[in-house]
Amino acid sequence: MKFSNFFAPTLKEKPKDAFLKSHEYLIRGGFIQQIGSGIYNFLPLGVRVLEKIKAIIQEEMNKTGALEVSLGFVTAASLWQKSGRYERYGKELLRFKDRKENEFVLGPTYEEVITELIKSYIKSYKQLPLHLYQINLKFRDEIRPRFGVIRGREFLMKDGYSFHGSKEDLKREFNVMEETYTRIFTRLGLEFRVVEADSGAIGGSGSKEFMVLAQSGEDTICVCNKCQYAANLEAARRIKKTAKTPPPQADFAKFHTPNTTTIESLAEFFKVDSFWTIKAVVKKALFEKGESALVFFFIRGCETLNVTKALNAIAGANDIIEASEEEIRSVGLCPGYIGAYALRNITQSPYIYFDKELEDCKHLIMGANEEDYHFVGVDLSLCEGIEFRDLIEVKAGDLCPKCGEDKQGELYLTQGIEVGHIFQLGDKYSSAFEAFFLDESGRSKPFLMGCYGIGVSRLLGAIIEQHYDERGMQWNKAIAPFTLDIIVSNIKDTQQMEYARNLYRALQERGIECILDDREERYGAKIADFELIGIPYALIVGKGLNEGNIEFIQRKNLLKEKLDSRDCVVEKILERIGS
Amino acid sequence: MKFSNFFAPTLKEKPKDAFLKSHEYLIRGGFIQQIGSGIYNFLPLGVRVLEKIKAIIQEEMNKTGALEVSLGFVTAASLWQKSGRYERYGKELLRFKDRKENEFVLGPTYEEVITELIKSYIKSYKQLPLHLYQINLKFRDEIRPRFGVIRGREFLMKDGYSFHGSKEDLKREFNVMEETYTRIFTRLGLEFRVVEADSGAIGGSGSKEFMVLAQSGEDTICVCNKCQYAANLEAARRIKKTAKTPPPQADFAKFHTPNTTTIESLAEFFKVDSFWTIKAVVKKALFEKGESALVFFFIRGCETLNVTKALNAIAGANDIIEASEEEIRSVGLCPGYIGAYALRNITQSPYIYFDKELEDCKHLIMGANEEDYHFVGVDLSLCEGIEFRDLIEVKAGDLCPKCGEDKQGELYLTQGIEVGHIFQLGDKYSSAFEAFFLDESGRSKPFLMGCYGIGVSRLLGAIIEQHYDERGMQWNKAIAPFTLDIIVSNIKDTQQMEYARNLYRALQERGIECILDDREERYGAKIADFELIGIPYALIVGKGLNEGNIEFIQRKNLLKEKLDSRDCVVEKILERIGS
Repeated sequence: MKFSNFFAPTLKEKPKDAFLKSHEYLIRGGFIQQIGSGIYNFLPLGVRVLEKIKAIIQEEMNKTGALEVSLGFVTAASLWQKSGRYERYGKELLRFKDRKENEFVLGPTYEEVITELIKSYIKSYKQLPLHLYQINLKFRDEIRPRFGVIRGREFLMKDGYSFHGSKEDLKREFNVMEETYTRIFTRLGLEFRVVEADSGAIGGSGSKEFMVLAQSGEDTICVCNKCQYAANLEAARRIKKTAKTPPPQADFAKFHTPNTTTIESLAEFFKVDSFWTIKAVVKKALFEKGESALVFFFIRGCETLNVTKALNAIAGANDIIEASEEEIRSVGLCPGYIGAYALRNITQSPYIYFDKELEDCKHLIMGANEEDYHFVGVDLSLCEGIEFRDLIEVKAGDLCPKCGEDKQGELYLTQGIEVGHIFQLGDKYSSAFEAFFLDESGRSKPFLMGCYGIGVSRLLGAIIEQHYDERGMQWNKAIAPFTLDIIVSNIKDTQQMEYARNLYRALQERGIECILDDREERYGAKIADFELIGIPYALIVGKGLNEGNIEFIQRKNLLKEKLDSRDCVVEKILERIGS
Repeated sequence: MKFSNFFAPTLKEKPKDAFLKSHEYLIRGGFIQQIGSGIYNFLPLGVRVLEKIKAIIQEEMNKTGALEVSLGFVTAASLWQKSGRYERYGKELLRFKDRKENEFVLGPTYEEVITELIKSYIKSYKQLPLHLYQINLKFRDEIRPRFGVIRGREFLMKDGYSFHGSKEDLKREFNVMEETYTRIFTRLGLEFRVVEADSGAIGGSGSKEFMVLAQSGEDTICVCNKCQYAANLEAARRIKKTAKTPPPQADFAKFHTPNTTTIESLAEFFKVDSFWTIKAVVKKALFEKGESALVFFFIRGCETLNVTKALNAIAGANDIIEASEEEIRSVGLCPGYIGAYALRNITQSPYIYFDKELEDCKHLIMGANEEDYHFVGVDLSLCEGIEFRDLIEVKAGDLCPKCGEDKQGELYLTQGIEVGHIFQLGDKYSSAFEAFFLDESGRSKPFLMGCYGIGVSRLLGAIIEQHYDERGMQWNKAIAPFTLDIIVSNIKDTQQMEYARNLYRALQERGIECILDDREERYGAKIADFELIGIPYALIVGKGLNEGNIEFIQRKNLLKEKLDSRDCVVEKILERIGS
């Protein structure tokens, strides 16, 4: 490709709303153009990178036996009504009517469509397993699209759905996908973690996210400093925390504790570590049909409630929100002094949960449900019918649940960009759609489903968030729009042009994707474009050619090297590029 | 690919609404699944063919220097308001609002988007010419989607847009695209015609359509039996028709002609060929802002008015519709006796047009604008200020405008499916968007644009309409989902399976895309699927293997040939497949 015939409209100015470097550089480098909130045109450079990413994904997916399909983008609302998501999905689901007033949505995901598809064709276990995937446009009407292609409204996604006759086979495919995604993201040159994710809300039995490590990431993830363990905050576990101070020795008793409505004041009052206190966190859970109820979570005073874990604890709840002081007082409770004793009798609420690390714990201090009073010497091992759940947020410095015992691996928090998500859905959709097959013994069973997504257009941004410097982007060879930029310093110098053209042809013949910068531009502008666009290598054909010198540059470290222009240049370049 | 791992859900029953064979076979063969009116899922077989068609289009487009982009599907309504098409496009343009009540459309075509894109980046003639294309989903809310993928609502389209500094350069690119499209459709194995199309409405200076010849086509096209000339009815021309009978000899005079309100009765009255009579066709033209006017077209009595040609004759008209007898009488005219003399004075209408074949004609008979009276001996060469236009429909047997003089080529009418359209748009959109560039002398000029479309998903249907028999589809090798179907007659016969597997591996290694039919199905079902799906070649590994025989079948003519299973089978197959 000759640059003079190409369309890579680079810009000097940073777009106003670009807070991330990837957003800024992709626009300035002429890869994308914003045409609406969260909607982008992909220009030739952007398309070249997208196509390479797609090819890698297709190659790896096809290797596993998954089959590519292309599902209709405009989807009948009736399918979404059947699964119940038409109402539940919220405003991110773009709904509209056609000329005949039929209701449709723009597909943000395809569990409904694919389940209906499978239902109409697959009848027997003999036709299983089956994995269908597509790489297609999706639309999600984000309230606040941002970060360029990382959180757009219209985006390209690889979504795959697998169907199985048994849990074991679903698990097998899930593992194959974990390996496949790992290979894909490795080939894309990403530093990432496979992260245990929350799967409570969708009700599946396992879910992992692929997180690109980047300071600018929106997601906080919890990573071990010694092993590969990583998890989302809402899924992170740890080795049970142990006491660092001796327990307060006291028999069970009610104690007058004026002005101790906070854990700090309570611990201070008793001169104990807040580890020995119990904090009550009151929330309001929302259920189907507009019903709601107060819910009570008891955790150590030194811990923080994780809202997703809390939500997952309550069967049937769709969401939990803050409970107001009025609401708490109206059921006869006194904020600051709430405890578990007699709580069910006072409030009638069945929703009372303790953090699982409190199981069988003694020597605790807890509210007495009476203003200015706490109980001391609380022994939970004596209480019956307590429901223990994992409720608390893991903190930096906690011990890794995988290697904490042996190697004392410690967890730390870092930021990530989610680029993939794999999911064991189970029979959630197949049951809702009555999508059944006959098993070996002739019994009708719902399919067991997995689903697997990769944010393809988002990857453009995620990759750059890990690979840039102050001059621009740094694409790796596997997905760079071009591998080598041959820059002619002065195109009016016929010797330079002639030499560059010959080299360009010779390298193209050897399979190197070159762009020949033959534009009528200053040398400095050409170098600036090379650095901004982030082509992995450049070759400068300039004045030095008279003395038999050309210059080879690696974009990543901007390392420059003089080459003898008369001596096996093609071979030397191939060697350096590693082709 | 092993058939047992593949997903090609073939059906025996014909879908109720499938009137075309392509529609029936694509659904029965498991290439597509209908999920809504005019909306389809593409299953693995369909995707494989689509991908091959896309690859051919991309290869040929890229060769010309056109650059691939991907434009946002969800498009701001404001762009369409700017071009005026938001109102004019009609209900086929699907309009909707997002969660913030902003108005959008689903892009059916991208002249607006691309013009805005170019405007923001291209400032100088030095950056021209530029041709950007995409292969992306489009949506057109057809009132009556039909014929499967041939007239869907959601469809895959290649649309390209070129920008130029001069008419000559636009014309050059237009010619390049005509050649490119011709190569693409030839590689797809299609019998097609490049057809002159009407370009009046869009106001460009040239437009050609690529029509696949098929009985089932919706478009009537006019084709020469001796040369390559072909045109849409609304664009078809012919060599001027000459008289087959001597002219009625009469001096100019008003004649009492009772009961001659039809051309037949008039010709009968005078015992002349209707060639010598003039027919008045009165229509009502609709203009912007709800204005309308009666319009008058005069053509020979033996001809038919072509409505598109008629519409193009009237500057500024958006549409023409029938005029009622009341409307005609209300301006003082008498249906059946309308003529051109004094017509402007009677009606005040400036919209009076004669067919151009009537220029300078004499000996004509025409209405006298008086009940029961006609003029005879009308000599148009004596009249001043007549506007002559091409108004009439070409008929079978008319002489070809290209070779009619020399070779007496005759036109005939046939049916076609439009699969491509190329267009010289000129400055229509660039002027509306104030998209200007500076030319060599520093003057600001609107870009001159071309646009070029291929109906990619429609091609699946169009190809089959030309390549099927009563058993199913007949794909050609260039785009077939697989090249060779290796059918194992009895998979429990280990010798057969072993042989087939080895052959499969050997042929795959030689680059032949094979599918190994190792399903637990009857032999007859496997053959029926091979014939329905239309894989170009099959190899039957059956009982004959014991005697050293296998069978090679060509799908197209169902020609069968015995091959010696022990003698260079791979080479023999490669030879027959032509790889």
